[in-house]
Amino acid sequence: MTSTKPDFDALLNQAHALANQASSVILPRFRAKVDIAHKGGNDFDPVTEADKEAERVMRELLKERFPEHGIIGEEFGNENEDAEYCWVLDPIDGTRAFIMGQPLWGVLIGVARKGVPIVGMMEQPFSGERFWAADGKAFYRRGETEQTIQTRACAKLEDALLGSTTPDMFDAANLARFDSLAEACRLRRYGGDCYNYCLLAMGEIDLVVEAGLQTYDILPLIPVVEAAGGVVTTWEGGDASKGGRIIASGDRALHEQALKHLNT
Amino acid sequence: MTSTKPDFDALLNQAHALANQASSVILPRFRAKVDIAHKGGNDFDPVTEADKEAERVMRELLKERFPEHGIIGEEFGNENEDAEYCWVLDPIDGTRAFIMGQPLWGVLIGVARKGVPIVGMMEQPFSGERFWAADGKAFYRRGETEQTIQTRACAKLEDALLGSTTPDMFDAANLARFDSLAEACRLRRYGGDCYNYCLLAMGEIDLVVEAGLQTYDILPLIPVVEAAGGVVTTWEGGDASKGGRIIASGDRALHEQALKHLNT
Repeated sequence: MTSTKPDFDALLNQAHALANQASSVILPRFRAKVDIAHKGGNDFDPVTEADKEAERVMRELLKERFPEHGIIGEEFGNENEDAEYCWVLDPIDGTRAFIMGQPLWGVLIGVARKGVPIVGMMEQPFSGERFWAADGKAFYRRGETEQTIQTRACAKLEDALLGSTTPDMFDAANLARFDSLAEACRLRRYGGDCYNYCLLAMGEIDLVVEAGLQTYDILPLIPVVEAAGGVVTTWEGGDASKGGRIIASGDRALHEQALKHLNT
Repeated sequence: MTSTKPDFDALLNQAHALANQASSVILPRFRAKVDIAHKGGNDFDPVTEADKEAERVMRELLKERFPEHGIIGEEFGNENEDAEYCWVLDPIDGTRAFIMGQPLWGVLIGVARKGVPIVGMMEQPFSGERFWAADGKAFYRRGETEQTIQTRACAKLEDALLGSTTPDMFDAANLARFDSLAEACRLRRYGGDCYNYCLLAMGEIDLVVEAGLQTYDILPLIPVVEAAGGVVTTWEGGDASKGGRIIASGDRALHEQALKHLNT
């Protein structure tokens, strides 16, 4: 292991290449009447050919370019995940939005170094939007327009716009805590998946509060939120990179208030 | 009053012109840190400059071209609404999505003749999508691609994908009925506003169930859903054009099942 600075350019170039490939696999299958297989279990948990094929091509590209790196992916599990650098892939975050035709899902690509998220990317192929971050800077690109992004100031819960994918992600106890927080906010809206964290990073919303996330659902978004000036933790204020109950805030003062509210 | 066939070409040309104008007013204000005024009342009900300005330009265009027609609009009320032809305008359906930066809101433009919806249009300027219907045909356009659309077959609740904007639109009694229906479906997802009705019209989802709608929230969507092969009624199975509790289905057999489920 080495403690030199990561080669952010090389990692980002690879992340962009993965996002391009994943998009080219997934987009033709969006709204194309794909077969929806059942992952098993009692809850409906769709997985499409698009998910699987996109993760497969991303893994292939990674093994060619960085054979010594680890990979954690939603569809095909972990490989060499204790390597110094580990890629974290969710080919379609928001599969339910995807199968309903709503363009709020995204391709998530992250890099952790010794467990710490250092590069993150979210790609929405239908709207043509890409969000990414590395080395403390967060970016947004759509068409020819590329810009840095940052969260907005919002120090009070009563001014905050809150996004969350669905109340169905909370058990009864967590839903009561979430509802209480939401009632203290100016507005809450459901739906969004990864897209909400990116809207937070670009200063459109102030809070995202969720539960039941996996590491691949959140780790790639952490560098984007943090580099844009925001904070992402568990509901206890701890490391978010393993998933679980997650809260993201655009403003550090708001985060403290929201954590206090969730935990009283 | 005359009972000749409406001049659908003239009405549609005007609807396209209104949608173009509204888009050019609204899109520059999307994600542009607009001032959000408060409409009053206890619930947060944002109205933006974009809403008002878009409705204002649409009303101007209508008065130039069809001065004898009536207008019902969300922002500026009713004018001559008992005329044979009445335009129904919601400049931004989904204002909450709009102020949170989610591109699922839309410009709604409808025409009713003697109270019956005969032309409908939904325009999403950010994604560049337009849905419309007249004279029994429904269309979708994005970029250079224009196509007819139709709902999909889905005869059973257990196979149905259900969309609804938010549980917050239901009172406790209605929420219980909605939840029971949602549990009988394969999948439910919140978020979407007018966009969900259009996804239903293009065969991506099967049911939309909502409450508390106004005439301008639903009337412009009725021709789109119906011309695509779907059904829109109140929860009692009556005329949906005045708003209230609304259910839309892509398949007539599904609609009957869902109504039965809601009413038992």
